[in-house]
Amino acid sequence: MASSKPSLPKGTRDFGPKEAARRSYLIQVIRQNFVKYGFSQIETPALELLSTLAGKYGEEGDKLLYKIRSNKNLRDKLSAEQVEILDNIYKFWLPQKSDLALHYDLTVPFARFVVQHQHEITFPFRRFQIQPVWRADRPQKGRYREFYQCDADIIGSDGLWNEAELTLLIHDVFADLKYDGFLLKINHREILMALARCAGLEGKEMPFCVVIDKLDKIGREAVVAELLTLGATEEQLSPVLNLFDLTVDNAQKLEMLTALLGENKGIAELNTYFALLAATGKSLRIELDFSLARGLSYYTGVIFEVKATDVQIGSITGGGRYDNLTGVFGLPGISGVGISFGLDRIYDVLDARSLFPEGLQTSTQLLITHLDEACMVHGAGLLQQLRAAGIASELYPDVSKFKKQMNYADKKQIPWVMVIGATEMETGQYGLKDMRKGTQESLALTEIIHQLQKD
Amino acid sequence: MASSKPSLPKGTRDFGPKEAARRSYLIQVIRQNFVKYGFSQIETPALELLSTLAGKYGEEGDKLLYKIRSNKNLRDKLSAEQVEILDNIYKFWLPQKSDLALHYDLTVPFARFVVQHQHEITFPFRRFQIQPVWRADRPQKGRYREFYQCDADIIGSDGLWNEAELTLLIHDVFADLKYDGFLLKINHREILMALARCAGLEGKEMPFCVVIDKLDKIGREAVVAELLTLGATEEQLSPVLNLFDLTVDNAQKLEMLTALLGENKGIAELNTYFALLAATGKSLRIELDFSLARGLSYYTGVIFEVKATDVQIGSITGGGRYDNLTGVFGLPGISGVGISFGLDRIYDVLDARSLFPEGLQTSTQLLITHLDEACMVHGAGLLQQLRAAGIASELYPDVSKFKKQMNYADKKQIPWVMVIGATEMETGQYGLKDMRKGTQESLALTEIIHQLQKD
Repeated sequence: MASSKPSLPKGTRDFGPKEAARRSYLIQVIRQNFVKYGFSQIETPALELLSTLAGKYGEEGDKLLYKIRSNKNLRDKLSAEQVEILDNIYKFWLPQKSDLALHYDLTVPFARFVVQHQHEITFPFRRFQIQPVWRADRPQKGRYREFYQCDADIIGSDGLWNEAELTLLIHDVFADLKYDGFLLKINHREILMALARCAGLEGKEMPFCVVIDKLDKIGREAVVAELLTLGATEEQLSPVLNLFDLTVDNAQKLEMLTALLGENKGIAELNTYFALLAATGKSLRIELDFSLARGLSYYTGVIFEVKATDVQIGSITGGGRYDNLTGVFGLPGISGVGISFGLDRIYDVLDARSLFPEGLQTSTQLLITHLDEACMVHGAGLLQQLRAAGIASELYPDVSKFKKQMNYADKKQIPWVMVIGATEMETGQYGLKDMRKGTQESLALTEIIHQLQKD
Repeated sequence: MASSKPSLPKGTRDFGPKEAARRSYLIQVIRQNFVKYGFSQIETPALELLSTLAGKYGEEGDKLLYKIRSNKNLRDKLSAEQVEILDNIYKFWLPQKSDLALHYDLTVPFARFVVQHQHEITFPFRRFQIQPVWRADRPQKGRYREFYQCDADIIGSDGLWNEAELTLLIHDVFADLKYDGFLLKINHREILMALARCAGLEGKEMPFCVVIDKLDKIGREAVVAELLTLGATEEQLSPVLNLFDLTVDNAQKLEMLTALLGENKGIAELNTYFALLAATGKSLRIELDFSLARGLSYYTGVIFEVKATDVQIGSITGGGRYDNLTGVFGLPGISGVGISFGLDRIYDVLDARSLFPEGLQTSTQLLITHLDEACMVHGAGLLQQLRAAGIASELYPDVSKFKKQMNYADKKQIPWVMVIGATEMETGQYGLKDMRKGTQESLALTEIIHQLQKD
């Protein structure tokens, strides 16, 4: 084994104790809310058949799949000459037989899951899934190649209550995280379609959405130019673009939209959605944004996107309704709606806003230190009693200088240190140091347990 | 998007709500014990550089790595003719630039982590890691291509207390899981080395270990034959093989071993190990087994393996001490010891023994049903109050037949159902069905909350 300087693939990260504890806290908060809302957890493998994922995310998405491909099967189909060339330039180093890929998101695997297990599932099916996903994307701030998604979907029901439910869930998650800088933007795919037609782009509704989606990135002027190139006229575009700039409240926005479009399925659904939410009596941070398009082509109804208003990071949660996600796997006519919390970006936002609670990392409450071998053996007996009493404790594992042991406690931010010397063993009165206050007292084990249980 | 019948790669699995809830319970129990013992969580990416993993698991292990390789770089080095041939027979479908692989275990990534972050780490470093790993192995019962490992390691301390600590941890985890069918087998690499020399195989200690490791698989006769082929004589082998069959207690085994080997580092360390454990006063399920070898070549001291005595499944937890794992990454002289709980096999054992607690899957406590649109809207208001009181509740999301709503509650095993009709809305007295008892009473919302909080 040769020595090599270790590093990581671009776009991937290690999480040390501090980051891992914070991520664990984030997952715990999201998970508790999923459970509170009646979602059941499922897990699908990271490895899917390439055929399951290919073609589901558009051409761009296909390029971003991490693929694992067998050379074995291929080799059988080649001529001897081709094999020789390949052997010279291209080692056959893959042992697996099938064409595989790492999942790109949790939505397509979920659709596969629903079709594959349709006879075991109770519909409407509320599922959640918290797992890493992989994208062979160009890494940049807030964009990683391996990152976590936390998804909640309700499938098999087309009632607008489901959209309301996910809206409440989003608010509860961010409330529990004490983050008040978020804004939930809402739109409806049918409204986008109607606006495209309004702009004179009948038959070009999807290209219209793609251009609109770039508003934040390329700016208004460039968007207008692209829409004109698509075939819109300035006169037709003007009333549509005006709708993107409204600073009135959501009810007024819907009124003005209705004045332009007349009857529209999207408007009707949003009215129902807002009426249901009003019935809950909850105060909500929702903003209608008729320019919200979101890239994924499978959305058919309400579209969600949560932005951080105070941290530059893009979307931190997103989702929407899809009417035919399982159709591609042979089960048509099932409507679903879902959202995905972007764990890594939410982490960055909470970090930027210093919203992580203190003390997440501390796991050990008490360290037993000792002055010699005999004291250490004595400590091993005490340790059991401390742990049995529910106190996360450690015994320093080597006979070492006392200073080294204290240094360990200090660096690891262990709040209590117990000291065992010859006298302590004899009297059963042990030194207990409060590392935060710097004080020390002499106590019996039962008193120490009592003190720490109160802590 | 063409319709395709969905399936999964061989050796991978979906986990539905029941399995996922059980796996979550298992992880929770293991995790709580890791924390109780003062281990800090870290997470490393699933994707590592191929150079980090290659050569660390022996030749066999290398073949089992799931590799992801770029064709881009390669392409630049080819002639135009070669490119043409490749384009015809071998599509350039991988966009990523580096040679990557999915991690095969959590130990080598941990060694890389320690070297890379050595200046941020407090030693002795107690870390735990719970993540999936991948092996392109031939799938069979109890062996998967994607499975979870739950690892705890202590690195930077060579005191035998660390081995004792992991022994206690193993016992606490299985005690919390209520599993009493496990047996912790112990050996020491130095004892194996000395036995090899005893058998006349000086200089062939590692081949000796490899053969001994196969005792369970190929049987005693075949092992003897292979050892004779290696160069042992029957006369030399006989006292060594006798040690494998001892039915006496651990102390007597060590005595008999000492009689054969004389002074030995392994024996001395095991004596210290047992003395430290005795000081804890805990009753333990440990069996010395001088034939325990374990495949991994990096172990240098105590070796652990936990077997299920009542379920045919092989090792469910394993580990040992390694003196130079980080040396390969340029940081020599750091000793560590670790164990790895095999989540999937422990799952199978608990399942076979019916040891999973009841009710793990139930997440929703109460379903609000309704007879029409107005009742549903009314229910949306009540739902908030129920959830605010900490009761996991759902509102049936569609205006549907009452029977359909009840059927949903029944299938999802929701224990309580609230019924809202016109009368209920008027009086504020709601029907509350106890689905387990089949009884129903009429109660105000505060009474319902009170009743369920007691549940």
